[in-house]
Amino acid sequence: MDVIYSPDHALHQSPGELNSGEFVAAFEKPERAQIILDRALAVGLGPVLAPERFPLDAITRIHDAGMVDLLRHGFAEWEKLGRKGGAFPFTFFTRGFRADRVPQNLEGRLAHYCFDAGTPLTATSWQAIESSAHVALTGAAAIVSGASSVFSLCRPPGHHAGSDHYGGYCFLNNAAIAAQHVLDQGAKRVAILDVDYHHGNGTQQIFYQRDDVLLVNIHATPEQEYPYLLGFADEPGAGAGEGFNLNLPLPWGTDWEAWSAALETGCRRVAEYAPDVLLVSLGVDTYLGDPISQFKLDHEHFTRMGERIAKLGLPTQFVMEGGYAVAEIGINAVNVLTGFEGR
Amino acid sequence: MDVIYSPDHALHQSPGELNSGEFVAAFEKPERAQIILDRALAVGLGPVLAPERFPLDAITRIHDAGMVDLLRHGFAEWEKLGRKGGAFPFTFFTRGFRADRVPQNLEGRLAHYCFDAGTPLTATSWQAIESSAHVALTGAAAIVSGASSVFSLCRPPGHHAGSDHYGGYCFLNNAAIAAQHVLDQGAKRVAILDVDYHHGNGTQQIFYQRDDVLLVNIHATPEQEYPYLLGFADEPGAGAGEGFNLNLPLPWGTDWEAWSAALETGCRRVAEYAPDVLLVSLGVDTYLGDPISQFKLDHEHFTRMGERIAKLGLPTQFVMEGGYAVAEIGINAVNVLTGFEGR
Ligand SMILES: [Zn+2]
Ligand SMILES: [Zn+2]
Repeated sequence: MDVIYSPDHALHQSPGELNSGEFVAAFEKPERAQIILDRALAVGLGPVLAPERFPLDAITRIHDAGMVDLLRHGFAEWEKLGRKGGAFPFTFFTRGFRADRVPQNLEGRLAHYCFDAGTPLTATSWQAIESSAHVALTGAAAIVSGASSVFSLCRPPGHHAGSDHYGGYCFLNNAAIAAQHVLDQGAKRVAILDVDYHHGNGTQQIFYQRDDVLLVNIHATPEQEYPYLLGFADEPGAGAGEGFNLNLPLPWGTDWEAWSAALETGCRRVAEYAPDVLLVSLGVDTYLGDPISQFKLDHEHFTRMGERIAKLGLPTQFVMEGGYAVAEIGINAVNVLTGFEGR
Repeated sequence: MDVIYSPDHALHQSPGELNSGEFVAAFEKPERAQIILDRALAVGLGPVLAPERFPLDAITRIHDAGMVDLLRHGFAEWEKLGRKGGAFPFTFFTRGFRADRVPQNLEGRLAHYCFDAGTPLTATSWQAIESSAHVALTGAAAIVSGASSVFSLCRPPGHHAGSDHYGGYCFLNNAAIAAQHVLDQGAKRVAILDVDYHHGNGTQQIFYQRDDVLLVNIHATPEQEYPYLLGFADEPGAGAGEGFNLNLPLPWGTDWEAWSAALETGCRRVAEYAPDVLLVSLGVDTYLGDPISQFKLDHEHFTRMGERIAKLGLPTQFVMEGGYAVAEIGINAVNVLTGFEGR
């Protein structure tokens, strides 16, 4: 399958994150995408294509324009204020604060839009963020044009970013932007299967009230794991979207047997929905060696994951999400894709 | 007037805060309270009394029991997980996350209840937090017993803490706890006048729908200043509380002339309300030398502030809030109190 990739991802390099009460090196780093690309090339997955450019509209179809403006121009304002390091919020939105009024000043906009202390903006972050969205959009355009499968090697990842909030290493929701593009080009129904270790809270928030996108999430239970505040089993969707969100939370220590049973449940729901297109939010932090995760999938299980997804027989776009065992991320991610291709 | 003070405040010492993208030393530190006490003693303000103890109920009348439990026991859990430094959240609540379900795990509870990266829990924080609430409650009890004025030298401060969220150096809302105590002891109406440089978002959230507490806030506009997401002029209260919240936001650079005009407006509103008791949330970060603030009040203006408040002729409890020009905090805070006493 074609691999969509831009080296511009390396323009986002986080200066660090607040983790367990200390500033530590960022887990989400450029090597991740490089190693996946190297592996894709090594196994001859397919041609590596640069992304096309898309108008900003393709992004603001999903995201609040004020948030996009902050992502584009926030760091320049930060620098003008004489500040060093990445642009981090100092404070955050919570219950009791106003959601209906966004302050003009930079600190207030950071507080309004950003929900964690691990997703800083740097001088060149926007180029990477936008290129990641374009990598997703280019893959979506390939599917619209009739490709049976495509791999959008997105970085930074996207599934924690909601319509008007960003965090969890994610700025724009690449998978949601791709799904919207496919719908805007004429598809009636899109399914998103999120296999990342973490719940895709942003994707859920974006589509929670819609029935034209089915979202199936297999992930570590928020009772134990980030993002903690969304991703419970009792979140079926609301309004028109009721019945079109399926969360399959699993406990720490989940192995392939339990994980693959959830995958089976998820795939059956996808088949029942009969979408025109399937998007897979492909995180491989379910790997047993992942430094921040607690599931126990091994290399060969990623192959079997791809095989099961292929059985759905749908045009399928893979969109890269998380995975922090950097040395192994290439093998695990590409195993899903070669498994999908049946080789 | 009596001064209520406990040296236990020093048991909370923040290891630092995320500020302008870097970890820096905390602005809110034990010296603040010590210097105010020294000044109160130097001018012979009144006897310094230790706080009485109160049942936890006096706190949970205002605050969510789950949050109080986190403040009490969260750091012990943090240590058990092998973590160093203060207990900081890594991620935070925002729009789209569930408010109706609090996760069991520590990280999730920190994310649910804490809204900034500047209010960490340490091993002995709870003793300081609880003693600060008891300092406020003891002052409230003195007013109930007939004192015409009292100074609760609270630390940590309280006005940014809401019923179910804490941040901004504040864990429990001392003024709100004191106001509730006065009401529970038979008062019909309490007014809170918050003169801290920052908007008292927590106090506003707690009483926003109630008419038995009038809240007047004079503060830097959230368009420019922390907490950014609350404290605009168009927040009159809601439901039964409509008309009982008055925000008087002022721009950076505000001097005594403009500030005292807002004080006049606020005092007239208090007089009109005719409360049984007045609580003053006394922050002196309006001082021109404050390192994190942008107002221009000088020493003598604090005296005049106290004089104007005294003219209301109400039983008055002063509850200490912010002020970060440590060397001058004693003069400024105590000037309000001696001004109130007319000396
Ligand atoms: Zn993940
Ligand atoms: Zn303040």
